[in-house]
Amino acid sequence: MKNNPLPIYLDHNASTPVLTEVVDAMLPYLREFWGNPSSTHVYGWSMHEAVEHARGQVAGLIECDPGEVYFTSGGTEANNLAIRGVAAANQVRRHILTSVIEHPATIGPCDWLAQHGYSVSRAPVDGVGRVVTERAQEFLGQETALVTIMHANSETGTLQPINEIAELAHGVGALMHTDAAQSCGKIKVSTVDANIDLLSIAGHKLYAPQGVGALFVREGTPIKPLVIGAGHEQGLRPGTESVASIVGFGQACEIARSSLAEEGERVSGLRNRLWGLLSAAIPGIAMNGCPTDRLPNTLNVRFPGVSGNALLAACPGIAASTGSACHEGADCASEVILAMGVPESEAIGAVRLSLGRLNTDAEIELAGAELIKAWNCLV
Amino acid sequence: MKNNPLPIYLDHNASTPVLTEVVDAMLPYLREFWGNPSSTHVYGWSMHEAVEHARGQVAGLIECDPGEVYFTSGGTEANNLAIRGVAAANQVRRHILTSVIEHPATIGPCDWLAQHGYSVSRAPVDGVGRVVTERAQEFLGQETALVTIMHANSETGTLQPINEIAELAHGVGALMHTDAAQSCGKIKVSTVDANIDLLSIAGHKLYAPQGVGALFVREGTPIKPLVIGAGHEQGLRPGTESVASIVGFGQACEIARSSLAEEGERVSGLRNRLWGLLSAAIPGIAMNGCPTDRLPNTLNVRFPGVSGNALLAACPGIAASTGSACHEGADCASEVILAMGVPESEAIGAVRLSLGRLNTDAEIELAGAELIKAWNCLV
Repeated sequence: MKNNPLPIYLDHNASTPVLTEVVDAMLPYLREFWGNPSSTHVYGWSMHEAVEHARGQVAGLIECDPGEVYFTSGGTEANNLAIRGVAAANQVRRHILTSVIEHPATIGPCDWLAQHGYSVSRAPVDGVGRVVTERAQEFLGQETALVTIMHANSETGTLQPINEIAELAHGVGALMHTDAAQSCGKIKVSTVDANIDLLSIAGHKLYAPQGVGALFVREGTPIKPLVIGAGHEQGLRPGTESVASIVGFGQACEIARSSLAEEGERVSGLRNRLWGLLSAAIPGIAMNGCPTDRLPNTLNVRFPGVSGNALLAACPGIAASTGSACHEGADCASEVILAMGVPESEAIGAVRLSLGRLNTDAEIELAGAELIKAWNCLV
Repeated sequence: MKNNPLPIYLDHNASTPVLTEVVDAMLPYLREFWGNPSSTHVYGWSMHEAVEHARGQVAGLIECDPGEVYFTSGGTEANNLAIRGVAAANQVRRHILTSVIEHPATIGPCDWLAQHGYSVSRAPVDGVGRVVTERAQEFLGQETALVTIMHANSETGTLQPINEIAELAHGVGALMHTDAAQSCGKIKVSTVDANIDLLSIAGHKLYAPQGVGALFVREGTPIKPLVIGAGHEQGLRPGTESVASIVGFGQACEIARSSLAEEGERVSGLRNRLWGLLSAAIPGIAMNGCPTDRLPNTLNVRFPGVSGNALLAACPGIAASTGSACHEGADCASEVILAMGVPESEAIGAVRLSLGRLNTDAEIELAGAELIKAWNCLV
């Protein structure tokens, strides 16, 4: 692998590199400090303090009280805890509202609830992949325990009308959860602005290591633990804290907060440049998702007359994804793109190009040229 | 903190330091490589390969097929997955057998099952903290879905009769799970020798980072996932893999495997020396747990006439634990020690001294002297 230059990384929505500053923050908790944060001696105290410092950094990013941040092993666990934990704590209401464009980490626990006595509704999306608020509203009622809708879609980047839907949810006495794994660190996500009750974050989507995340739970929200054991994380998430990873996660949140606007502007400039290159050269190319209300780093395009998998296979200089959950090599269209009303014959041409902090102007020019060349060869 | 020398660390059963070789193995996956192991490009392939290499290293330690190792966020999650996952997959049998000396990570899911239509029995222990096989057998029947008994007790180090109990469990058609978090890396734990179906390991008990562990699930064992989402870990444990931590965990398992006998002998020598010092100087001191069949690093003693908490508070040069789940400062006896039939007035004097790789002869001499001096001052 070292003999060939690595392809240009345009798959940040799948996983981000860990920032150098993040690794540097973690290293003392791998090399110098150790101990169990629950231990009542100096080794434990140092570890406990590190966890609480990180909790404050995460709270700073999403503008909440540190006591409302519960560390988890990542976004998937955070979603499971939110969805199944709220359902378990509510013995009366037995309806969950979600959408047709959720991540498997939301679909999974919703399906589980559907198999265990709950009814689950899935709100549709419009042509840009945005949940239709009016249609969502139709599903809401006195039976609704929880509404769980992602903050931004991971494939198209389209931002969802979370605030409006949260208001509707609260209007019927339901709680609002949002999976903000793709949004946090890319755009401002505030629990103050967005009147939501629960919010999931994943470390490895914002330049922290994999295997760490958090669930924001607004104070007073009834919720039960998913994993059961000792009293860690106020009893909501037992298990010895993953101190080094939590420290890295906190550092990544602080970096994200301090550079959100600047980096968002830079990366959206690169993203728009890439779209400019592609749309000028490829007749019939189209964008999937909302051109305006969208994550700044995400460009999902459908190439005419080719499959996304075939196109990426013809671009060894680029690492990206079709965004679908297909097995390697199989050509099938993304459920998210299909849900937007895109015909299957077109949806199959979708490619997700998700940019990030390490991408440069030069890389974008190269990537654009390679995609255009490959498309011309294939059609 | 840096101004005073750190106390001698005798709390390895709470959490171990991360070995330098383990951090070194992790660093490339924090600094050089990144990507989602599920991604179908070179970034993903490197991460995937690293996870599979580590899976082989874990399998090497416990002598199983790598395909039987499922990575989790730690021991607590592994126990939850084993206990609730097996119960969920068995729609007929509704009885669980555990013991009176389990960790909260086992008590928790068992209590949860007891609240959800299962009956849970708890086998008693004898005077050295060993589960009484004959008494355990009395609880077993055609209703028993699972027997879950820890491999070695974390407070006393007493080894449990896992092989005998597994045989009895299988005799009635039940599955056998053991929480080997404290044993793995300290003594040989083999899924070949021990005829068990499920086995939990925790990284931070064997010199790997916190926040990573594994569940061994013998091939063909019916089990359902606890966390639900995408298809990671054969669908049994979804969520993007914690690659760097998994790599460190694998490395720690390989180091443990290659130095198990040698390090066990060294550390038990230190442990026995410490007991020799204490027992020679303190009349009426007693050992909690089995003097012979015990983890090589663990010494649980009860000091006469003092509480363990008071004694440790008088020993600023030592970092250890009373082993009880009490809140800081509160004087209450360990449930484990009480279950062994030790009177509460004596049990309150229990202190767990758990040694490890970094402890030296000199440290043990110093620790022994400090404990003896503190005891003499207090009584």
